[in-house]
Order: sequence, then C-alpha cells, then structure tokens
Amino acid sequence: MNDSPNWFDAYFSPTAVLRLQVTRRLFEVSSPFQKISVFDTCDFGRVLALDDIINVTERDEYIYHEMLTHPALFTHAGPERACVIGGGDGGAMREILRHGCIGSAVLVDIDRMVVDASRTYLPAVSCALDDPRLEIRYEDAAAYIAGRQDEFDFIAVDSTDPAGPGERLFTPEFYRNCRVALRTGGILTAQSESPFFDPGIVENLYASARTAFEHVWMYTAIMPSYVSGLWSFMFCSRGPDPLRDFQQQRFAESVFDLGYYSADMHRACFALPPRIQQRFAHVLS
Amino acid sequence: MNDSPNWFDAYFSPTAVLRLQVTRRLFEVSSPFQKISVFDTCDFGRVLALDDIINVTERDEYIYHEMLTHPALFTHAGPERACVIGGGDGGAMREILRHGCIGSAVLVDIDRMVVDASRTYLPAVSCALDDPRLEIRYEDAAAYIAGRQDEFDFIAVDSTDPAGPGERLFTPEFYRNCRVALRTGGILTAQSESPFFDPGIVENLYASARTAFEHVWMYTAIMPSYVSGLWSFMFCSRGPDPLRDFQQQRFAESVFDLGYYSADMHRACFALPPRIQQRFAHVLS
Repeated sequence: MNDSPNWFDAYFSPTAVLRLQVTRRLFEVSSPFQKISVFDTCDFGRVLALDDIINVTERDEYIYHEMLTHPALFTHAGPERACVIGGGDGGAMREILRHGCIGSAVLVDIDRMVVDASRTYLPAVSCALDDPRLEIRYEDAAAYIAGRQDEFDFIAVDSTDPAGPGERLFTPEFYRNCRVALRTGGILTAQSESPFFDPGIVENLYASARTAFEHVWMYTAIMPSYVSGLWSFMFCSRGPDPLRDFQQQRFAESVFDLGYYSADMHRACFALPPRIQQRFAHVLS
Repeated sequence: MNDSPNWFDAYFSPTAVLRLQVTRRLFEVSSPFQKISVFDTCDFGRVLALDDIINVTERDEYIYHEMLTHPALFTHAGPERACVIGGGDGGAMREILRHGCIGSAVLVDIDRMVVDASRTYLPAVSCALDDPRLEIRYEDAAAYIAGRQDEFDFIAVDSTDPAGPGERLFTPEFYRNCRVALRTGGILTAQSESPFFDPGIVENLYASARTAFEHVWMYTAIMPSYVSGLWSFMFCSRGPDPLRDFQQQRFAESVFDLGYYSADMHRACFALPPRIQQRFAHVLS
C-alpha cells in the first residue's frame, strides 16, 4: 500500500480505498509506536496520517474536534478540569480550551513525535498546546488514567483505531478506570469509529463502555476524509443528559467561531437513523 | 479511468478517488444518453453507475431514496399525485408509492435502458415499477414538465450530475416550469450534490430554484458511496414548511419499515452546520 509517490491510499477496508493525490510529502518517520506521515493533498489540504490511516486533515479536522468536545462541554453545567487521551495533534485541546470555565487540562499522548509533528506542520491545529492551563504528558494513557480518582469533569478519548497503539483504549478496564477518574456529573466522549463500515468494532467499544457507565449515547458527524463519511462518537455520562441538560444559555453567551457545532447541531447529532439505532440498541442506554 | 478489471474508480474530483474492488461485472452498455454499468462490489453490494459515477448501490440506496421523498411527503398535508424526474432505477418511486394517499404517479426518464437495467439487475430497487398507479414515460423530462400545469402535489428531481443528460434539470427555466406544474401547497425536492466537494454546483442549483420558489431549504443525509459522504437535498415549497408542517400523526400511523428516515431524522436533517449555512445563506430562504 502507498507505493505510488503521488497518491495516498486510505483503506476503508481491504476492498475500498480513498485515493488522494499528494502534491508534497513533508515528513515521514517511524516513531517507537507508529508510522507518522505528513503530506499535502489537493482535496483535503495538509494531512497527518498515523500508520497510513488519515488522522487529521486541514480541511475537515474542525468537524471532528468540535464534535468530540463541545457536545459534552455544553452539556456539563460547569466543567473545570479536562483530560484528552491521545489527541497529540492538539485539535481537541484547542476546542476544550476555548471554554473559559476550563481552569486546567491534561493531554496524555504516548507518542511525543505526534505532538512535535503537529507543532511543526499543523500550527492551526496545535495552536493551543502552549496554553498555560495545559499540562502535556508523554506516557501510556491507560496507565495514567488508572491512577486518577474523582479528578476530571470531562475526558475526551481521541484514540487511533483499535489496531494501533490505541488498542488498550477500547477495553472494559479502561472505561472502568475512566469512570473512577471522573467527578460526579462528569462526562466522557470518545471517537467511536464508523458504524457503516466497522459495526463490530463499534459494538465492542460500546459494550466496553457500558460495563462502566449506565448511560451511553451515540451521536454522529459527517467526516468527509474518514471511512464512509459517517463518523460516530460515544457520550458516557455520570449524570448529565445531552438533550435534557444542554446549556443553551452558556452556548448563547459563548462567541466561538465554530464551523460545524451549533445549538441546532447539538440536538440533531443525537438523532440516529433507525437502522443504526436498531443495530446498536443493545449497547446504548 | 476504470481501466483495471478488478476495481471501479469513482472520481470525487480529478485528485480524489473512491476505489472499490469489483467481484463481478454484470452489464455495460452505451445508451444513446450515457454509459450504464452494473457490477458487484465487496463493500457496497451491487452498483449501478452512470457515466462512471455511482448512481445506486444496494448497500446505501435506501438512504438516498428515503431522503429524497419522505421529508416532502410527510410535510404535505395529503399528497395525491407525484412525479419523479429521472430516477429510472425506480428507488424514489418505490418510496413514494408506499404512501397510500398517492393515487397516481408519473416517472419521466429519458433513458429506457436505465429502467431496463434496474428491472434486471436491481429488483429490490425497481420493485414498484409495475404498480398500477404508475405511468412510466421515456422522454425528455424538461420538455415534459414544461407542458404541465397545476397537476402535481410532489415532484422529485432524481437527476444525474449537471455534466450528464441531467444538465437541463439545473436551469432556472426548468424550476419555473416545475413551479407551474405543482398545485398550490405542492413541494419539489431535488438531489443537490455535495456541499463539501462541489459548492459551486450546489450554489448555482439553489440560485436556479430561487428564481421560481420563494421558500427553499437545504437538508442533508449521509451517503457513504457518494462524494464526501455528505449529500444535500433541496426542498422547494409552494406553501408547506418542513419543520412547522411535519405530519406527525400521519407518520406515526404509517408502518413503513424505513432504514434512515424517522420523525427525529426529519427534524435533524434540516439542521445545517454553521459553515454550510453561511456558505449558502444567500441562496436559501
């Protein structure tokens, strides 16, 4: 795969490939954990790929990062301390730190080279990594979170696919530890893969989370550069309900310039097509 | 393009391609209007392509056909006569004819060979083409609709892209004629391309429709086999408002087994991400 110098092949499955013409290859390295590549494309601008899977593109990263964070942060009544698991590119943290109520935050990524690559090649994504409220830790996130208790109002799991270094972030044990690390009223969100192409992975992930959380919702967003265009996110709560407790007032007072998330999109993203609803009903609350 | 026997290349743009592995080629012909191909794929099941653009796949056609029709048919208070422009595969008509209130319908497709191919190779899509309420006409739909007046409660424009035989279905004149062909209170919907990849085409289409209709909405659905996964639809009305006039009661009494559309999805699909809203605000009502 990816043997042509002018094209990048993103495999949705062994038999479906999104091929993007590459205009410039900027960076490629094998870190101790994964292959990291940065290149420019005509259609999606600059791309960060991990193990040949598209992780971030300039063109649509705002959708993913807004949707991983704001639905939870505008459901929680007053989040103060947040943690991002993975997410070394910094995009999720950029969105979290827009919230003035966040007093401190921790980013835990096992791979320092992802953070460095993002700082160098994706300044608009990594722009909040020097925020004084932020602590960056380069260590195994599953081990880190296992030692925390009653500490976070919000945890965002910005993992790679379960085949890569993110594998431990898909287990029941990890979700039980996350629950303990959350304060009462806390919320965890996670990217939860493609319900269309990888329903088995999605199902297992939700089943893992349900061993720890009573209330688990699925919501979706459109990610043109990701498998099938349809991406799902998991919303696990120690109390708040994303539809009942939407913080309309705080959202109205925020003056974020967002591209995808809005009050209307908050409500809309939790509506699931019947076929998806039925497929995953047994692992949703 | 498409010179490899085992792969089909769907070009999203000259520099972005969705490649699908083909397990069997079933049919290929050049009709007087376009190239028609039918083949089986691993990921999307059987595919009908027109001029090498994916038109219908077994796997996700239900999304497109449900969303082209039900949002309008469950907004109109009592649609009786419907017309599909294009849509020779029969999928849109299948959804329309689920509605018992539809007493008669016309399908106008210029290309009989599309209808024949669908009857032969896509029986689950073409299954309603023998409904006694349906008249099928093989002629230029723009010319057909120009001769009608005050006749239809619902028109669905199920066109190909503007580069193919569907070109005339993107003009202001066509939309003015459609408006005349609708009864008071009538609704027209149209597939309206990818706002992410082809915003210029989308903009021109809505501008054409706005010369004829005061009220034009955009709504979206996720179509994994289409460009970018995000597909838009246009909702033009001679009265009813899709959010205000949703026929909750009639929907609740219908017992259609739908995969994508629901009361929740009806409301959700009209929520547009801010960046799309802003990009097209000047051509939306």
